[in-house]
Amino acid sequence: MKLMRVGQAGNEKPALLDADGKIRDLSGHVADIAGEAITPAGLAKMAAIDPKSLPELMPGRIGACVAGTGKFICIGLNYSDHAAETGATVPPEPIIFMKATSAIVGPNDDVIIPRGSEKTDWEVELGVVIGKTAKYVTEAEALDYVAGYCVSNDVSERAFQTERSGQWTKGKSCDTFGPIGPWLVTKDEIPEPQNLGMWLTVNGQKMQNGSSKTMVYGVAFLVSYLSQFMSLHPGDVISTGTPPGVGMGLKPPRFLKAGDVVELGIEGLGTQKQTFVADR
Amino acid sequence: MKLMRVGQAGNEKPALLDADGKIRDLSGHVADIAGEAITPAGLAKMAAIDPKSLPELMPGRIGACVAGTGKFICIGLNYSDHAAETGATVPPEPIIFMKATSAIVGPNDDVIIPRGSEKTDWEVELGVVIGKTAKYVTEAEALDYVAGYCVSNDVSERAFQTERSGQWTKGKSCDTFGPIGPWLVTKDEIPEPQNLGMWLTVNGQKMQNGSSKTMVYGVAFLVSYLSQFMSLHPGDVISTGTPPGVGMGLKPPRFLKAGDVVELGIEGLGTQKQTFVADR
Repeated sequence: MKLMRVGQAGNEKPALLDADGKIRDLSGHVADIAGEAITPAGLAKMAAIDPKSLPELMPGRIGACVAGTGKFICIGLNYSDHAAETGATVPPEPIIFMKATSAIVGPNDDVIIPRGSEKTDWEVELGVVIGKTAKYVTEAEALDYVAGYCVSNDVSERAFQTERSGQWTKGKSCDTFGPIGPWLVTKDEIPEPQNLGMWLTVNGQKMQNGSSKTMVYGVAFLVSYLSQFMSLHPGDVISTGTPPGVGMGLKPPRFLKAGDVVELGIEGLGTQKQTFVADR
Repeated sequence: MKLMRVGQAGNEKPALLDADGKIRDLSGHVADIAGEAITPAGLAKMAAIDPKSLPELMPGRIGACVAGTGKFICIGLNYSDHAAETGATVPPEPIIFMKATSAIVGPNDDVIIPRGSEKTDWEVELGVVIGKTAKYVTEAEALDYVAGYCVSNDVSERAFQTERSGQWTKGKSCDTFGPIGPWLVTKDEIPEPQNLGMWLTVNGQKMQNGSSKTMVYGVAFLVSYLSQFMSLHPGDVISTGTPPGVGMGLKPPRFLKAGDVVELGIEGLGTQKQTFVADR
């Protein structure tokens, strides 16, 4: 299934995209794409519904593909080529940092360049949405705890992240820095998460063109690893790191300015398109 | 007012502590100590209630003093003496990191030492609870966005924090590592947040004995500073850093083991008492 949330920000309806590309209203069946609805039992109930029995919704704004996210966990330097372009080496264990959940927005919403920013950058990433509470799970069983996948743009302000007294969260948590979606694609549609093409353009120019096959630490490892430190809950999102081609890795570096348009996508997971705007 | 939440975990009732030390049930007036209820308008409504008109609740488990926390933001090395004991220097700007909101527990709940931990440590901290959405606010107006204060124990696993490939969040986010409460004390009762005595004992032995007057970056500065990076929302909690006396600063260092009892308190904000237990 391709689950989604459509409508004005803060007032989205749960929906699914049917095989014909039509948006179908799930609000008669679930309150939101969140919590119980995305557990294995909740997903099974939704999968049993005939999409044609659901009212069709007109296309409109698409919200973040999941609601009620308690944790938005990001993995740093998880592609060896990307580590190299930033001048870093691949870490011996995954680097974990948090993005504020208040940064989450829809996949095509404007991204606001914060006041004082001169180094706003892009990062196409495979997002993993948790569907079942996970604590001390093994790598072999880890995917049982995953509801599905989504496109994530881990928007980053590099000066805030690295030049403003430590801890990356400062450059990762600005409002609108977390577009996720358009869809939460359930894992049955993505049997091999470690072989997905992924790309990103700025004003139509290809900047990132990679594959999840070059991830250092794969999805199953990451879910297991994180669950050794903390419980993961349904709706938590893990953004698994970015392949090469970010602005800070270019020579000279290139950063986003108001009016720039960023498009990105991952094989099977849809695309995003954001206009970057100044904060007034 | 001293606002609190009492009852079994996940099923707490909103309450207040009256002038006679009795716990009074607020559930006929507000759904929870969260969101709208702790905005200036919500607090004014609660303040207008005669506590004697509220049903008395029997003492029992006390939950975290606020619910619906979207962000649990911590400030690193915010006391010059504490920075010195850890071998660090005071940073030129506040260090921000996130604690997972899934770590939040009640003030007297057991704290679970995670599997593999050998360096679980304590940190008494002044917690600040946001009561009004704050974005780009000045230091002069910052306290208008604060609902009140609470005691926070920023429990930390030092090996996870500093020896496991970067970013402190890994050692700060373990389940139960975020006791907050017993009360959200509204700011009218704490006219001077920068002059509060604070202490912590381990098995009755005084380990920390400080005052918020030695904070490097004060509450108003921090609220303003954070709001330059991200919107703060009602229910967000800022844990503002710890004074000297943590286990990692002792010579030799001392860390917590199963059976240890930690008690801590801040002037006017009440006390916490946690038994540290092994994870089974």
